[in-house]
Amino acid sequence: MAMATKENGLGGAESSTSTPVATPMATPVSTRSVKWEKDVQEAAGTLDRPLLHKRCANTTSQMAVVGANTCPIESLDYEVVENEVYNQDWRSRGKLQIFQYQVLKWTLALIVGLVVALVGFFNNIAVENIAGFKLLLTSNLMLHNRYMAAFVVYISCNTMLAAAAAALCAYIAPAAAGSGIPEVKAYLNGIDAHSILAPSTLLVKIFGSVLGVSAGFVLGKEGPMVHTGACVASLLAQGGSRKYGLTWNWIRYFKNDLDRRDLITCGAAAGVAAAFRAPVGGVLFALEEVTSWWRSSLLWRTFSTTAVVAMVLRGLISYCRGGHCGLFGKGGLIMFDLSSRQATYTATDLGAVMLLGILGGLLGALFNYLVDRILHIYNLLNEKGPRSKIILTITISVITSCCTFGLPWLTSCTPCPPELAGKCPTIGRSGNFKSFQCPAGHYNALASLFFNTNDDAIRNLFSAGTDREFGVSTLLTFFTTVYTLGILTYGVAVPSGLFIPVILAGASFGRLLGSLLGSISGLDTGLFALLGAASLLGGTMRMTVSVCVILLELTNDLHLLPLIMLVLLIAKTLADCFNKGVYEQMVRMKGLPYLEVHAEPCMRSLVAGDVVSGPLITFSSVERVGAIVDTLRHTGHNGFPVIEDQPFAPAPELCGLVLRSHLLVLLQGRIFTRRCVTTGATEVFRTLAPFDFAKAGSGKGLKVDDLDLTEEEMDMYVDLHPITNRSPYTVVENMSLAKAAVLFRGLGLRHMCVVPRTQGRPPVVGILTRHDFMPQYIRGLYPNTMPR
Amino acid sequence: MAMATKENGLGGAESSTSTPVATPMATPVSTRSVKWEKDVQEAAGTLDRPLLHKRCANTTSQMAVVGANTCPIESLDYEVVENEVYNQDWRSRGKLQIFQYQVLKWTLALIVGLVVALVGFFNNIAVENIAGFKLLLTSNLMLHNRYMAAFVVYISCNTMLAAAAAALCAYIAPAAAGSGIPEVKAYLNGIDAHSILAPSTLLVKIFGSVLGVSAGFVLGKEGPMVHTGACVASLLAQGGSRKYGLTWNWIRYFKNDLDRRDLITCGAAAGVAAAFRAPVGGVLFALEEVTSWWRSSLLWRTFSTTAVVAMVLRGLISYCRGGHCGLFGKGGLIMFDLSSRQATYTATDLGAVMLLGILGGLLGALFNYLVDRILHIYNLLNEKGPRSKIILTITISVITSCCTFGLPWLTSCTPCPPELAGKCPTIGRSGNFKSFQCPAGHYNALASLFFNTNDDAIRNLFSAGTDREFGVSTLLTFFTTVYTLGILTYGVAVPSGLFIPVILAGASFGRLLGSLLGSISGLDTGLFALLGAASLLGGTMRMTVSVCVILLELTNDLHLLPLIMLVLLIAKTLADCFNKGVYEQMVRMKGLPYLEVHAEPCMRSLVAGDVVSGPLITFSSVERVGAIVDTLRHTGHNGFPVIEDQPFAPAPELCGLVLRSHLLVLLQGRIFTRRCVTTGATEVFRTLAPFDFAKAGSGKGLKVDDLDLTEEEMDMYVDLHPITNRSPYTVVENMSLAKAAVLFRGLGLRHMCVVPRTQGRPPVVGILTRHDFMPQYIRGLYPNTMPR
Repeated sequence: MAMATKENGLGGAESSTSTPVATPMATPVSTRSVKWEKDVQEAAGTLDRPLLHKRCANTTSQMAVVGANTCPIESLDYEVVENEVYNQDWRSRGKLQIFQYQVLKWTLALIVGLVVALVGFFNNIAVENIAGFKLLLTSNLMLHNRYMAAFVVYISCNTMLAAAAAALCAYIAPAAAGSGIPEVKAYLNGIDAHSILAPSTLLVKIFGSVLGVSAGFVLGKEGPMVHTGACVASLLAQGGSRKYGLTWNWIRYFKNDLDRRDLITCGAAAGVAAAFRAPVGGVLFALEEVTSWWRSSLLWRTFSTTAVVAMVLRGLISYCRGGHCGLFGKGGLIMFDLSSRQATYTATDLGAVMLLGILGGLLGALFNYLVDRILHIYNLLNEKGPRSKIILTITISVITSCCTFGLPWLTSCTPCPPELAGKCPTIGRSGNFKSFQCPAGHYNALASLFFNTNDDAIRNLFSAGTDREFGVSTLLTFFTTVYTLGILTYGVAVPSGLFIPVILAGASFGRLLGSLLGSISGLDTGLFALLGAASLLGGTMRMTVSVCVILLELTNDLHLLPLIMLVLLIAKTLADCFNKGVYEQMVRMKGLPYLEVHAEPCMRSLVAGDVVSGPLITFSSVERVGAIVDTLRHTGHNGFPVIEDQPFAPAPELCGLVLRSHLLVLLQGRIFTRRCVTTGATEVFRTLAPFDFAKAGSGKGLKVDDLDLTEEEMDMYVDLHPITNRSPYTVVENMSLAKAAVLFRGLGLRHMCVVPRTQGRPPVVGILTRHDFMPQYIRGLYPNTMPR
Repeated sequence: MAMATKENGLGGAESSTSTPVATPMATPVSTRSVKWEKDVQEAAGTLDRPLLHKRCANTTSQMAVVGANTCPIESLDYEVVENEVYNQDWRSRGKLQIFQYQVLKWTLALIVGLVVALVGFFNNIAVENIAGFKLLLTSNLMLHNRYMAAFVVYISCNTMLAAAAAALCAYIAPAAAGSGIPEVKAYLNGIDAHSILAPSTLLVKIFGSVLGVSAGFVLGKEGPMVHTGACVASLLAQGGSRKYGLTWNWIRYFKNDLDRRDLITCGAAAGVAAAFRAPVGGVLFALEEVTSWWRSSLLWRTFSTTAVVAMVLRGLISYCRGGHCGLFGKGGLIMFDLSSRQATYTATDLGAVMLLGILGGLLGALFNYLVDRILHIYNLLNEKGPRSKIILTITISVITSCCTFGLPWLTSCTPCPPELAGKCPTIGRSGNFKSFQCPAGHYNALASLFFNTNDDAIRNLFSAGTDREFGVSTLLTFFTTVYTLGILTYGVAVPSGLFIPVILAGASFGRLLGSLLGSISGLDTGLFALLGAASLLGGTMRMTVSVCVILLELTNDLHLLPLIMLVLLIAKTLADCFNKGVYEQMVRMKGLPYLEVHAEPCMRSLVAGDVVSGPLITFSSVERVGAIVDTLRHTGHNGFPVIEDQPFAPAPELCGLVLRSHLLVLLQGRIFTRRCVTTGATEVFRTLAPFDFAKAGSGKGLKVDDLDLTEEEMDMYVDLHPITNRSPYTVVENMSLAKAAVLFRGLGLRHMCVVPRTQGRPPVVGILTRHDFMPQYIRGLYPNTMPR
């Protein structure tokens, strides 16, 4: 796994490091570290490393990166590259252009909100109709006592839907499988994993999610919605296609990682807002869980995006209330409206709630551990190819169908409470009292939970004033099944969110505890269900403020706030003692080179110079074309220091940093001279527009093989001054590595130059990139300093 | 004003800058810039600049810094000073110490929550009792038709309360006047203005706020609560008094700016949570408005603090509901419970709401402009001394009393609605229908608003189903009066929050518009009042998410969310076209050297070397004691580069940075040698404990005059290696100034070393500090580059 970040071509190989400085430790000893060092040599040396897209396309999202040495990961650069070209372009911008930029920024954010709301709504309607149709069909057969036929219809519907979802994921967009939140989190940390935000991923995510949820899996649409939002934002930020002339010139202001990151943050927030219909919760979720950087102005823009989502959804839902949307069910903007219930509680109640928090924290930590184990097993299966993925998915689907259809037979029928005559058993597809196999006037409690969409099951569990509806054995069976199926389902090749399984399991567990403690606590069991959901969410996701606000927005009762807070605090604190949050765990498992907020303590005892190694590749400020092309061809590096030397400077000095992409554009423009002279930015603009230097979308942009230069041109010179970033961030080689990491993450850098401490040395001694701060890498170099 | 940051002794003078590098612009030309340059010379040169505390103590908070060249402002250092002493101390920490540190961090955060909740509750009870007693007394006299006596009692109560509040502020703690939010905002940005968080300020803030609110001023307790929370947190973070032995040894882990900042952030959030009883809103307020830095883990701790506040308040309020708290009024944890109202709205309603947003934005921008003007006038008056402050306060109090008592006489009495028999006119101190001078069965609508506490007036304005209670003329009179009084009151020498005046004015304005648009919009006028408050808050404070959440927590109706969002978006966007938010405006007016998120665009065309000037003062790594003492005595600098030279290095190189405070401690410890040799950290620990180097509270710590060294000692040598921060953040001199500013603010630095680009120069060419990034300073140096 330690190799993942390094061997993937660009992720690690973008650095070019050199001039080993005196290290405080002995040279590397373990096999691992030797391997690492070899990689560094390769990356900085002579190997051409083709991007193995093909292999990637055949692995699922879970597998795309895990342990794989195949998929390209590129780092993102959130620094503004202030070279002459940029500065000249920037200075030439009039008030109109700045206004255009502002308008564009806001328009795009609002469009993201609109599109995500529409997608979320489409998802909702599609699921309610498909699943509703399936459930109605089965229920009708059950009413006529044709149980076997009902089972066959039910299981074959589910299997077909599951197989379709799995086929989409396996063959078209493996990256669409799973939650998507870990990938979005990694992207916003600065890691561009292959095809994570591609159009095909978006389409498969939308339709796969609909099929997966309809197939009756224990999974949700929330994580996929976050991923969908991020994909929509990413596509919009690409600004159309230059190839087909479908683009605006002024969208170039937006073609950089920084603005894209901001828009993708808005998209992720919009996804949560659409999934839970929780606009404030969406903003907080993005802030607490997804992003690594935050600015106050972003809060404001994200908030506008989620406001659009809330308003569009509200409009569409009131349209659907008119009966225009087929089987579209209950639930306005607030999905589970509990506001009628007034919570007053005593000290005993608080004790019960605390117990709930403790148990939720323990169950949550166990959940994370088991998900991690299961994913490792599934990854081995999924690696065998698309067919094995589909078989795995179908197996889990069959198990799920058998559980949901079979388990209700184990419970005896309950007579309807007399005060609910007319409402029990429920007719139609949703509702609290499913008759299932029971005679008239009776209902099957377990079927009311299993034989429903997940949203309706949650609504039933949260419902107030129904203390006696679900017995202890019913709740225990349901909880056990859902908890197990939630863990088993997550790794299959369908878009699958974790929120709904966790809420389902938490709610049934809470209600179970509420029923057991009924004699000592006067709280409603529906309220216990809500608090149980909060505790399990706190125990698995380890989010606090956002989960709290999302639950409040779902249930619309602010009086519950102190209780929810208490439960979350206890569950998170306790679970943190055992393992990490589920998303962090997955980011780590996928081998994504995620930069943590806090540097590892052991990095304090190392300095920046300790981790740079390998020969450093630099360019002169006016360089021979052939030398550049050769270097680009034979390394995967993305940034090169530029050295100002004679005749332009009396002694070598650091001029700045050039990017591979800019070099390629400049070479393509053929602004060459026969002699070694400077030409300046004006000359560049005669051939190239600033737009040409804008960053292309992921996987796009010029390649070195696209250049078609003659032998004569290869012997000419090119002036790198106009494209050199004159202000790269630098650290002195004896800077504490921990502090260098703080700087690197804090400013969202991709490259950081290491300058010498003493005089009489080359003006730059190495470059630090993301992988140099990875604990695995450092551990390889200094196994004694960095304990596992 | 440009001088404020510079002449105040430490704020600007902590830099020591030198070796002017080639600048792209001509040398300074204007008088202003010449003056600036002179300051720099002085600061870096020979002048001893005593700290003029005395003058400071005689000016109000508004004046403490504005235009004044008298008050010390110190920068804070959020960087971990990783010198040998720190590292040795850190390495020696066992698991127990790390656990102690974690426990301490959480305990302090929770204690802050507890204390702030108690203070907030005390404030509430005190105000309700004092103001309630006053209103009851007056009402009784009115009932017996003794109008003149009532007026005399009313006005003299108000005047006495106002005079007491003003006297406290003017004589004891001038820093307690005003809102306090700008100061806390500045502190968290890294500016430690004199006595902002002192114990005297805390006491005056608490009691002054109670007196001020009770005096019937149009001001709130919200801003003061934020300041109070920050003061409480700051005092706790001081960790007791070493002087009286009241301290723990292990609290030293907490004695640094970084941990204090985190705790003060919790305190500020707790203040908002206590004032509005809005825990989530408190966290968001801290995040959106107050802090300049944020980490995910801080979200979690802040949230726990506000959770404690919510729970303690809930407990206390239910205790008070039992009638144990005197005249304590209505309002549970949700202050204005509107949850009974269901909002359904049409397109016309949306139009009306948008109009409200537009007008709110315009009124808000006007409010900010007028507050700014008024504060400038008040500052001139306040500068004349405490007596003039008290006179100003009394004048405004008398005007307020005359308005609130006099204006109700202008309206005719309204007959009570027949369906409210028994409830109208209201008996007792609060309620909707005040009889005032009216005969039985009638009420005075204007008195129902004016002759009440501000909280009750807001509750009346927000109340639903009372469309005809307040007429258009009543609302117009009330709005005009409150809007004007709000502006006039802010600058007086009492602790005064801006939230309540803005909510009052906004609510009356919204209700007014609602009454006017009654024919075309079917929305409740109470809802219009709420939206009006939102629009004016958006127009003045320019906060979005936090105001939205606070209003939701105040009113407990999430259905209103889309409407509140829309109004806020429109109001903020529009108002931003005219001026800045009221708190930013005040920070700027007070001349606090606040670092903005975005560097001024013109800073892009300058480089770091352009702003360093004056002779740089450096120390050798083993320096003569006399040289250090002389330098400390004759400069106000706080950071000095340390140069490693022969015999310790072959050529001069940058060893690191020492802080004044550490130098003083080391000198005090008398770890001297007769010859120029290194001694190392172990030697230091023989005499000094790590705790000795912990940062003392604001204004405390050793002074250079406290050192009592003999002539002989002055000729000895001291080894600076153990206290030198070996990893100061550095920039190369040709680094873009804008990017240097991003680095400086992003990492919360106090000093940043500028290293040369070319070889053969001294290893450090200057130090950048906060004031070098101030637009005024740069404008002084380069008047042509930086337009006003």
